[in-house]
Amino acid sequence: MTQFNPVSQSAGGQASFIAVDWGTTNLRAFLMNQDGHIQAQRDSDRGMLKLGSAEFESVLSDLLGDWLTPDLPIYMAGMVGSRGGWQEVPYQQCPIKLEDLSEHLFWLTTSLPNKVAIVPGLRGTGVAGLLDVMRGEETQLLGALDWLEEQGRADESPIFCLPGTHCKWAQITEGKVTQFSTSITGELFARLNDESSLVKGLPKSNQLNEDAFKKGVQASLQAGGILHHLFSARSRFVCGELAADEVRDYLSGVVIGHDVNDTLEALKVVSLEVPKSPVLIIGSEALSERYALALSSRDLTSEFLAANEASIRGLKRLANRQAVSANNPTTGAL
Amino acid sequence: MTQFNPVSQSAGGQASFIAVDWGTTNLRAFLMNQDGHIQAQRDSDRGMLKLGSAEFESVLSDLLGDWLTPDLPIYMAGMVGSRGGWQEVPYQQCPIKLEDLSEHLFWLTTSLPNKVAIVPGLRGTGVAGLLDVMRGEETQLLGALDWLEEQGRADESPIFCLPGTHCKWAQITEGKVTQFSTSITGELFARLNDESSLVKGLPKSNQLNEDAFKKGVQASLQAGGILHHLFSARSRFVCGELAADEVRDYLSGVVIGHDVNDTLEALKVVSLEVPKSPVLIIGSEALSERYALALSSRDLTSEFLAANEASIRGLKRLANRQAVSANNPTTGAL
Repeated sequence: MTQFNPVSQSAGGQASFIAVDWGTTNLRAFLMNQDGHIQAQRDSDRGMLKLGSAEFESVLSDLLGDWLTPDLPIYMAGMVGSRGGWQEVPYQQCPIKLEDLSEHLFWLTTSLPNKVAIVPGLRGTGVAGLLDVMRGEETQLLGALDWLEEQGRADESPIFCLPGTHCKWAQITEGKVTQFSTSITGELFARLNDESSLVKGLPKSNQLNEDAFKKGVQASLQAGGILHHLFSARSRFVCGELAADEVRDYLSGVVIGHDVNDTLEALKVVSLEVPKSPVLIIGSEALSERYALALSSRDLTSEFLAANEASIRGLKRLANRQAVSANNPTTGAL
Repeated sequence: MTQFNPVSQSAGGQASFIAVDWGTTNLRAFLMNQDGHIQAQRDSDRGMLKLGSAEFESVLSDLLGDWLTPDLPIYMAGMVGSRGGWQEVPYQQCPIKLEDLSEHLFWLTTSLPNKVAIVPGLRGTGVAGLLDVMRGEETQLLGALDWLEEQGRADESPIFCLPGTHCKWAQITEGKVTQFSTSITGELFARLNDESSLVKGLPKSNQLNEDAFKKGVQASLQAGGILHHLFSARSRFVCGELAADEVRDYLSGVVIGHDVNDTLEALKVVSLEVPKSPVLIIGSEALSERYALALSSRDLTSEFLAANEASIRGLKRLANRQAVSANNPTTGAL
């Protein structure tokens, strides 16, 4: 089990680095203690989509305030490294050992006192043999390995499921991402749930209607494909088989059910067996609950790791490796 | 082969009834000649979605103008008969002989001099065993039977494909709709093509990029499901495998490819064989071309009937039957 080695030698309880999760809609910075725990957190809604490339430095500077000191290197993961982000950082090619991403950090040239690095995303091939990409999830996957190791489960090879706007399904062997596939599950649901003939005039609710969701998952197991099953949300409502307050969660069940079914189907093609370990879901609690329900309809167990925790653990691992292996990072090194 | 019998006896070239196709976005009225041909056409953009239930009569009255005479019965098909339309007309249950819809016309009470009828939609069960509905397509299907009969092909049983916002796939045996399934193909594509991360910043074009479309169809045949294949439009663009002007048609190929594949898959489950007749596509020319391409990737031939012509032929058949079988329609009869 790898222990966390503080990046800078300092007294107990003193901060040693800053972990930044900078996605499309949010920016979260964590002041990390030398024992690998969060000492303080600062959030902003200045996500990547809201910013021009010249604005990132000042936004980060404003958020960090008194954390801006030379002894606190900043490690950033997420869409901040994408085209349209602070700096486009080239993808690293799979298969790659996640820990080795520490050798491919992109060190930015900034006017900040801190050193600032962006973790590169991954580029690989998915279950269909098509090129696929991720940015941010690679750090969460490394964090998940850290979490498993901490529990003495480093030898397990679960399927990793990272639900969200774009859901990632990944397989890792001996610390290497061997294959991953992205599904547009969350964005597709959002488009249809925000504005479509399927939900026209129907009430919204923040609470999961589990029965309705399960009906949708059941529909996803029938013949005919998702395009037909999605329409059944409307036709079954019009025909009185679904109540007005069931349609949206039914729709969610159809979409997530298909994501789970299609992925399992494809993984059987690739690996010739369904995994025995529980599927490890890394995401928000609400979304993970839905994936757990859909997986259980296929007799699969799952466990949950919060996306935030996974990101922080991943950045901690990279900071750790970085401190051990490279005292003099080169600007722009890939 | 059924001949067209004019609804009212009149001199050659004289109009005998008015066919109205009133959908969600458009209203089209056709003055029909006694030989079953169009004598004149009047269009409006006052589709069902733009109108309150009290407005339909005046909108129709304004459009028809001098066609408002007692000797020209009006037959209307489409969403005009839906909830939110002029009058909600109950669905007829499948299996039903399409010609028999003439006995279930809904005669409106209006202040117009003409008699005005709405053709009821159908309610049935699709390939997944889920309830399904159609409104407007039943009339086009009857029109397609008329078209086949006219060519001496009344004994053929093709699969009918009616692409659009909601694509209908139907099977007809001895004039009866035995089964039909709706896919949300068109609406799903529109949502993703109008605004999604898949097409962000990419150019639009009105011309079909056939190569890009075929690449999408090919992707739809791989493992992993549509949710994954949709994302590949982005990842393959980001990785340089698709050009900026290919992404949208690639996306279209993925969606239509899945509609075709999933339906064929499901029909094999149900009928244990793929049809030998060409698939009969009823729709717009542009959309039908795409479906024909996707079908040909599965070694299936297809033929094309314009949606407009199908609607008019269907309404002609109903007007014809109505004239023969019922001289005194009852208001509101179902």
